[in-house]
Amino acid sequence: MNMRNICVVVTARPSYSRIKTALQAIKAHSKLNLQLVVAASALLERYGTAVNYIEADGFKIDAKVFNVLEGENLTAAAKTTGIGILELSSVFENLQPDIVVTIADRFETMATAIAASYMNIPLAHIQGGEVTGNIDEKVRHSITKLSDYHLVASEDAEERVIKLGEEKEFVFNTGCPSIDLAHIVKCDGDLNFDPYQKYGGVGAQPLISEGYIVVMQHPVTNEYTDSRQHIEATLDAVKEIDLPVLWFWPNVDAGADGTSSGIRSYRERYDLKHVHFFKNMEGQDFLKLLNNAKVLVGNSSVGIRECAYLGVPVVNIGSRQNRRQRGHNVIDVDYNTNAIKNAIEQQLSSGKAEQSCIYGEGNSGEQIADILSEVKLKFHKTIVY
Amino acid sequence: MNMRNICVVVTARPSYSRIKTALQAIKAHSKLNLQLVVAASALLERYGTAVNYIEADGFKIDAKVFNVLEGENLTAAAKTTGIGILELSSVFENLQPDIVVTIADRFETMATAIAASYMNIPLAHIQGGEVTGNIDEKVRHSITKLSDYHLVASEDAEERVIKLGEEKEFVFNTGCPSIDLAHIVKCDGDLNFDPYQKYGGVGAQPLISEGYIVVMQHPVTNEYTDSRQHIEATLDAVKEIDLPVLWFWPNVDAGADGTSSGIRSYRERYDLKHVHFFKNMEGQDFLKLLNNAKVLVGNSSVGIRECAYLGVPVVNIGSRQNRRQRGHNVIDVDYNTNAIKNAIEQQLSSGKAEQSCIYGEGNSGEQIADILSEVKLKFHKTIVY
Amino acid sequence: MNMRNICVVVTARPSYSRIKTALQAIKAHSKLNLQLVVAASALLERYGTAVNYIEADGFKIDAKVFNVLEGENLTAAAKTTGIGILELSSVFENLQPDIVVTIADRFETMATAIAASYMNIPLAHIQGGEVTGNIDEKVRHSITKLSDYHLVASEDAEERVIKLGEEKEFVFNTGCPSIDLAHIVKCDGDLNFDPYQKYGGVGAQPLISEGYIVVMQHPVTNEYTDSRQHIEATLDAVKEIDLPVLWFWPNVDAGADGTSSGIRSYRERYDLKHVHFFKNMEGQDFLKLLNNAKVLVGNSSVGIRECAYLGVPVVNIGSRQNRRQRGHNVIDVDYNTNAIKNAIEQQLSSGKAEQSCIYGEGNSGEQIADILSEVKLKFHKTIVY
Amino acid sequence: MNMRNICVVVTARPSYSRIKTALQAIKAHSKLNLQLVVAASALLERYGTAVNYIEADGFKIDAKVFNVLEGENLTAAAKTTGIGILELSSVFENLQPDIVVTIADRFETMATAIAASYMNIPLAHIQGGEVTGNIDEKVRHSITKLSDYHLVASEDAEERVIKLGEEKEFVFNTGCPSIDLAHIVKCDGDLNFDPYQKYGGVGAQPLISEGYIVVMQHPVTNEYTDSRQHIEATLDAVKEIDLPVLWFWPNVDAGADGTSSGIRSYRERYDLKHVHFFKNMEGQDFLKLLNNAKVLVGNSSVGIRECAYLGVPVVNIGSRQNRRQRGHNVIDVDYNTNAIKNAIEQQLSSGKAEQSCIYGEGNSGEQIADILSEVKLKFHKTIVY
Repeated sequence: MNMRNICVVVTARPSYSRIKTALQAIKAHSKLNLQLVVAASALLERYGTAVNYIEADGFKIDAKVFNVLEGENLTAAAKTTGIGILELSSVFENLQPDIVVTIADRFETMATAIAASYMNIPLAHIQGGEVTGNIDEKVRHSITKLSDYHLVASEDAEERVIKLGEEKEFVFNTGCPSIDLAHIVKCDGDLNFDPYQKYGGVGAQPLISEGYIVVMQHPVTNEYTDSRQHIEATLDAVKEIDLPVLWFWPNVDAGADGTSSGIRSYRERYDLKHVHFFKNMEGQDFLKLLNNAKVLVGNSSVGIRECAYLGVPVVNIGSRQNRRQRGHNVIDVDYNTNAIKNAIEQQLSSGKAEQSCIYGEGNSGEQIADILSEVKLKFHKTIVY
Repeated sequence: MNMRNICVVVTARPSYSRIKTALQAIKAHSKLNLQLVVAASALLERYGTAVNYIEADGFKIDAKVFNVLEGENLTAAAKTTGIGILELSSVFENLQPDIVVTIADRFETMATAIAASYMNIPLAHIQGGEVTGNIDEKVRHSITKLSDYHLVASEDAEERVIKLGEEKEFVFNTGCPSIDLAHIVKCDGDLNFDPYQKYGGVGAQPLISEGYIVVMQHPVTNEYTDSRQHIEATLDAVKEIDLPVLWFWPNVDAGADGTSSGIRSYRERYDLKHVHFFKNMEGQDFLKLLNNAKVLVGNSSVGIRECAYLGVPVVNIGSRQNRRQRGHNVIDVDYNTNAIKNAIEQQLSSGKAEQSCIYGEGNSGEQIADILSEVKLKFHKTIVY
Repeated sequence: MNMRNICVVVTARPSYSRIKTALQAIKAHSKLNLQLVVAASALLERYGTAVNYIEADGFKIDAKVFNVLEGENLTAAAKTTGIGILELSSVFENLQPDIVVTIADRFETMATAIAASYMNIPLAHIQGGEVTGNIDEKVRHSITKLSDYHLVASEDAEERVIKLGEEKEFVFNTGCPSIDLAHIVKCDGDLNFDPYQKYGGVGAQPLISEGYIVVMQHPVTNEYTDSRQHIEATLDAVKEIDLPVLWFWPNVDAGADGTSSGIRSYRERYDLKHVHFFKNMEGQDFLKLLNNAKVLVGNSSVGIRECAYLGVPVVNIGSRQNRRQRGHNVIDVDYNTNAIKNAIEQQLSSGKAEQSCIYGEGNSGEQIADILSEVKLKFHKTIVY
Repeated sequence: MNMRNICVVVTARPSYSRIKTALQAIKAHSKLNLQLVVAASALLERYGTAVNYIEADGFKIDAKVFNVLEGENLTAAAKTTGIGILELSSVFENLQPDIVVTIADRFETMATAIAASYMNIPLAHIQGGEVTGNIDEKVRHSITKLSDYHLVASEDAEERVIKLGEEKEFVFNTGCPSIDLAHIVKCDGDLNFDPYQKYGGVGAQPLISEGYIVVMQHPVTNEYTDSRQHIEATLDAVKEIDLPVLWFWPNVDAGADGTSSGIRSYRERYDLKHVHFFKNMEGQDFLKLLNNAKVLVGNSSVGIRECAYLGVPVVNIGSRQNRRQRGHNVIDVDYNTNAIKNAIEQQLSSGKAEQSCIYGEGNSGEQIADILSEVKLKFHKTIVY
């Protein structure tokens, strides 16, 4: 019997972590052959390459696609996508996948969607249908309209994809594979490693045994020039917090410069004795760190999804996660130092939140692999209304 | 007062004809400055370059973008789009448009949509919301989700774009500007030129004063390998028709080879004494030719739109125009020689059809220019549901 | 023992014919593994794809690179080269060659040379060191300066490459592998096939048993706008010749339009009852056709090389072969109808010319393979003076 | 009278400094119109963008070309060049230059040379003909063979370009425009600014009034994996020096990672109380800093050229400047900590060296502008032998 070639394109380190259990399930599936393509910022040292983690997890990388054009402005983001199409179409021609899988909504994922759909390769989209209210939203829904199969992460998303005119038969609410990892950590989540020793990074090394805060704040593409001001609001709030702070560096993005240089400049100006900066961390370790954190601060989707499942309190800043379905664990605030400080204090006093399963129950990866092994192969579709 | 820069990207000759009155109205508008970009197959000699017509109509071309990668396969179509993004983002950086306008749904139009939306330039889409049931549909609805303004051509399309989650405030049913041209021809449409003399072409030159048939059949992207068989069904049907036949060469497309080589090979094998082949024709002349034709045969959208307004009988072949709203003038058939022949005969015996205004009343160009001059500039949106 | 991977990049049909025996010798060599890449116009149907011939000859194609950007102007030639670099560097990364081989001097060969040399892959150049006096010359000598090994075709070329500052140790006069094929035809060269039947083509089918002329004229890149005038001078001369004429279509090139459309238009205007047009012909058959021709007319390098060995009289038009070493068989003329006609008549009256071995003795392919198997691997060099 | 459009493409910050006086002379020339294109690493913040300096010097930038593909490996260098060709050919089409000027020998300059020569635009090359013995050399001589005019910086280079088969008439020894700046500093070169205050940077801020050393060491492309080891040899040598050290960050290059991460890691491991790190410095200030330095250490060409004119002692490390003509001021050493330390001490004890004018006398910029205004326009050439 012929196995199906399932080609998954990972364009950013967080995307890898998010779907790792799906990759494992595809690899382990008796009817599927995993073809793994790593591209864009997922490859780059200065954003914390995903390659080491991927290989340490036992995956073989079938193709690496370097397509990030330097410039960190909007034109470079457009051109990076153009180069991505050029490169990925060659990769698909070599690998001859039966299904291509694209993940979420970063701008470069559009390159995967266009190359596959223009080449008449059935396209599966993981985590479509969500709403956030930024440029990612244009990309996300646009990819939905190019995709043949929709592997969404919540009921909310399922309904929205169907409203977008997709056939119900090809919309599957599998939950989010990132919750599979949270599930494991939930069961056995002690902080059994020293993050400074294991992951290096720069800055102070405050004692974390008595509790700590985690910060992760990405630039918001549509508000390019404000990136620096946004990050400084958070830095100001965090500077005065009494607890140790573990800060994670942002991913590449148009706008990264404002955020990154904001952090760098702040570090030169102030002596932050309670803040340590990490470039990246293996997914499972990061979840353990979160699971034991007092609060997560920033605008990462991990606060909305994994932390809902884990019951970790979150201070969610700004518009990046707008309108994503929330559990009981989130307080939303604007880019305002006082508002951020107050919300952190409120979360500290409330303690752990109740668990929500809105983004899955811990078996998404296997569901995804099963669907990809059975779904009818097709690249032709028409809107239902 | 600052005028708005409206940058229109034309990627194919038929797209130019379709929106010519909108270009004229933008150019003439006191608050608008037209920036015209000609790209892709619209530039190429072997598909009948649009440049001559554009310049003869008095337009200045602000930038030419050569991005068609040879190969005429699906990979080349993907790569053409990638190159288009690379080139158009440079063009937009130079021209600094306030609004970019992309037309319809050919695969290369995606390059315009991505370059503009990724660069945070407000994007207007002309002729979204329609349904056809081929690869164009993925492209069309995907562009809708990247676009900020929707200038649709029918009520049917208007409803569909709104269902896709776009804000009503930014969806405008202007009708199709191609109907503006049909309107002029309807008023004064005698065939006042000799098509052989004016447009050259190859093949026989049958007398057309006693009536004639027009044929225009494009390859259908999703059915690549069948292109040749499809065109031969039509060639076989047309070969036995008693009337003069004026045949128009297809545009570039992934699949063009099957169609084009099918025609070339047929011409070498058979002596087609009643068939003349044109590469292209100025839009107004083409409409006059249609207005005086007994039947239009093929799969061009002109049969669905302009011919509805003009009341010209149409034999529409295959899936390319599937589910587009139709007037009273169309008979649909499959790629089948007998079916095509019978439908032609039926249309010949019925004569002219009743006029339908479903695609506009003749003032679309002006409506479009007015909207572009007044609509709120924005590049940020979020799905309504 | 590890075999060396020898990656040969073929970018045009004539380049393939020219080095076929080298490919055969590499493939047959016990220490070499042939990696064959077919790119640019060599792939395209409308210039006579080389793929069919290559596969019929028993070669496996390891990668196909579509990089021809349509436009047929100088900008498109530059961009085609840029795309070629993007694509070929991915191919080299996949194939991991020990040596890359680039052939001759067409503009796209620069893409091979840059990709290989920038990636620190040892680069061998076949047929450097010659002089022609057109844009090809800039390309040819520029590639010499990027190359590590020089497999030249004549003593003249050997001396020139050494003068260019290359180390003698790495300059090898192997003769031209195209002469290997001429050698076989010289031994057994009867015209044992019917060219019309075997190769199709268009136009008249004059009887060739009593002798015929072959024409092959390519556009000359530097003289873009003159291409049409040049081809018409030849067409006018040939039109009045009494013998059957077998005309071969030009390859792609910036300027192809002038030449190709010149021929097309001429065919529509005149009834050329003694002229047949071929798109292409398998190399060996073409040599047999030449070997039995009364005269070769045009500007192909085959007139300078293979015809010298075969003793076929040549009327060489214009600057394309300027300063290439000549045997006794060539008369040079300008783009002038009368000059061309007179030279043809002079060659007809003289008959077969004396054999010259200036471009090799018939064993170049094997010499090349042996050198590639033994030469020291290196990608670092410095000018000798 | 029509002025000539002279389009200069600057791809790296040091190239800008090197030819600033030529740009000034072109801008000021009554028969020339300067078109300035800034591309590649010259634009990027993280290598010290040249844009600020260029604009502060009163130049208008006509086009910015972002073409650096991230990855910092050899494949990325090749692809960066491919993208450069795509982008620059569009720029040249817009600007319609009469002459394009390319500078020196970095890998991206090849994109300028190919785009211009393939588009039949006369190409001038500044600083060809030199010998260094690394990958730059392939690029440099290859560009010579694509160029129409050669504006070389020394007698040695002049002779070499002529030996490469170029016509004497088009080879001009103008000296190096960087010496024009050294000339100004030589006349009035006090250190009239505080480098820490004016240029920021990171690290210690040792007192420099009693003398200091300058370090500038770039990665050497051909020896990619050794970059880190090379930089550590220098770091080890410098660590034990008693004088203040002003260290300049390397430019982008394939291999930058090894060098840059070597420095970063060393800084985390050691407390370098006498070393300050600069990202960049305006050319004239840098020369003043050099003019007052005790020794320059590293592999920058500034040590060979400007320092010869200024008489500043230089410890030149490794192969990067191999075979470049030297004045009396240079000691060459290998990548060896002891050798570097000893050479520094030797230079410290010898003091200032004698002036050499081998790279010009201080009026190169004006000579270059005059030549570009008068030289015959041509893009066709043939090798002289």
